[in-house]
Amino acid sequence: MILTVTLNTALDVTYTVDALVPHTSHRVGEVTERPGGKGLNVARVLGALGHDSVVTGFAGGPTGDVLRSLLAPLPPRDALVPVAGNTRRTLAVTDRSTGDTTQLNEPGPQVSAAAEWAAFLRTYGELLADADAVALCGSLPPGIHVGAYAELVRIARAAAVPVLLDTSGEPLRRGIAARPDLVKPNAEELAQLTGSRDPLRAAGDARRRGAHTVIASLGPDGVLALTPDGVWRAAPPAPVRGNPTGAGDSAVAGLLSALAEGLDWPERLARAVALSTATVLAPTAGEFDAAAYAELLPRIVVEPHTPTP
Amino acid sequence: MILTVTLNTALDVTYTVDALVPHTSHRVGEVTERPGGKGLNVARVLGALGHDSVVTGFAGGPTGDVLRSLLAPLPPRDALVPVAGNTRRTLAVTDRSTGDTTQLNEPGPQVSAAAEWAAFLRTYGELLADADAVALCGSLPPGIHVGAYAELVRIARAAAVPVLLDTSGEPLRRGIAARPDLVKPNAEELAQLTGSRDPLRAAGDARRRGAHTVIASLGPDGVLALTPDGVWRAAPPAPVRGNPTGAGDSAVAGLLSALAEGLDWPERLARAVALSTATVLAPTAGEFDAAAYAELLPRIVVEPHTPTP
Repeated sequence: MILTVTLNTALDVTYTVDALVPHTSHRVGEVTERPGGKGLNVARVLGALGHDSVVTGFAGGPTGDVLRSLLAPLPPRDALVPVAGNTRRTLAVTDRSTGDTTQLNEPGPQVSAAAEWAAFLRTYGELLADADAVALCGSLPPGIHVGAYAELVRIARAAAVPVLLDTSGEPLRRGIAARPDLVKPNAEELAQLTGSRDPLRAAGDARRRGAHTVIASLGPDGVLALTPDGVWRAAPPAPVRGNPTGAGDSAVAGLLSALAEGLDWPERLARAVALSTATVLAPTAGEFDAAAYAELLPRIVVEPHTPTP
Repeated sequence: MILTVTLNTALDVTYTVDALVPHTSHRVGEVTERPGGKGLNVARVLGALGHDSVVTGFAGGPTGDVLRSLLAPLPPRDALVPVAGNTRRTLAVTDRSTGDTTQLNEPGPQVSAAAEWAAFLRTYGELLADADAVALCGSLPPGIHVGAYAELVRIARAAAVPVLLDTSGEPLRRGIAARPDLVKPNAEELAQLTGSRDPLRAAGDARRRGAHTVIASLGPDGVLALTPDGVWRAAPPAPVRGNPTGAGDSAVAGLLSALAEGLDWPERLARAVALSTATVLAPTAGEFDAAAYAELLPRIVVEPHTPTP
């Protein structure tokens, strides 16, 4: 099975309104709620690909209860650790006519360093014993130390479980120094980490900082992968337009599922790019279009990267 | 005790953001939640005035559970009737620098006409036996027939309990025809009901439609009261600026508490205007400033109304 860790899970709430106008009153037409947080999204895509997945991290309070009740009928197994605080909500307010979305993200519950983090570490250690790979995803909730992902990377490596880290800022910087197998930053995260906006240079810098493999997202142009086995670019046959929400999480699911199946780098990258492109094309944010994925997969262009002179 | 009915209760959620900008992403700084819906607000003010109050209406689902847990430590007694659907949230997004607020109101749960409305009617009938007065407040949730308030007015009158109706649109039109003791429309609600924007003419029309007393809100200028005992205007010593949220609910609490204490119309009106003005002045939306109330009460100007020739 593949384990995903989401320390700052969220209940993703979507409101549909005619058009959001600041400082006025709105009737909300439709309210939808679904379990969220990057690792939960990754696990949902893994389930759709037929892979066993287990989600852990924290959930608590009335919002945590709702999140777990919505997760219960879905394929990923719930191994979330209870916390006293209330799980955060993220609210997407979508304008009916244009589909434009305004995002409001709550901060997340305070997690106690002593009891709750210790309980999580016990669960994490037990789950790693059965894991073929682990993904560490998203932001840290208040109260969790900034080196938390570095700690989790070290524990995974000691258990010989391949570990992918998908976060940003200081938690990414510290986590990379603990030598994860894989990081998947976008251009903004790479620039924040390395100071460089040249993807090849920045990804090289990230590797020197400790990541064995760096998959740099190039947005609609696919990915640039610096691996121990070589450098590749993988891209869709043509850039697509749509909602990029969740495209990165689908790419993580593609990379980990292909890794667990023993596929080689070009096949892993093709799957990641096909899944993320099929997610941008899907009408529902964060879902992937299965037909588009099947159609795109054989058409992803994967080439060894030759730096321009 | 005074009974308040809120068929469409709400969990009032407030988000503080730097400034709401459509189609961008925001970090929410502070999240507060409190039990809401007009009748719950009225009951909270009654509690602050030292009156026993009981709240009924509907609550259900995870949001209803949160609402009831927040209501439990407060003075109003919880006699809400469970429903299968999820109680609605109202979200107020407040810009930190200016205090400007954007409101997003969920529609409310579907209530079943058969089982749930029938269960409510049983509870309502039992509670009326001990009530000195009853306030029927706010919008109807989906599934409740548009004549619901008319039905509740008739039941209260049959039980000889003075009944105040505070709603709008077609439920107000039908409810007035059932001859409530008191309605408290604002200018917009009166205009919608009668087609007239002249408060005296519109309030007279509302009386002819069935309301024994009409207290027309004039916003910062106080109220105009058409009662069986005469016509009065009541106004604060000077108009005040602030957040009018909840001012109408405070006025209802003032009218009902003074009625229960056997005060006469000028005293009832003075209390209603002092409470609503002290609510506009309070820093927290929907609360009233107790010191301002005490200071304002003797200074409210109540005069018999002489129509301009």
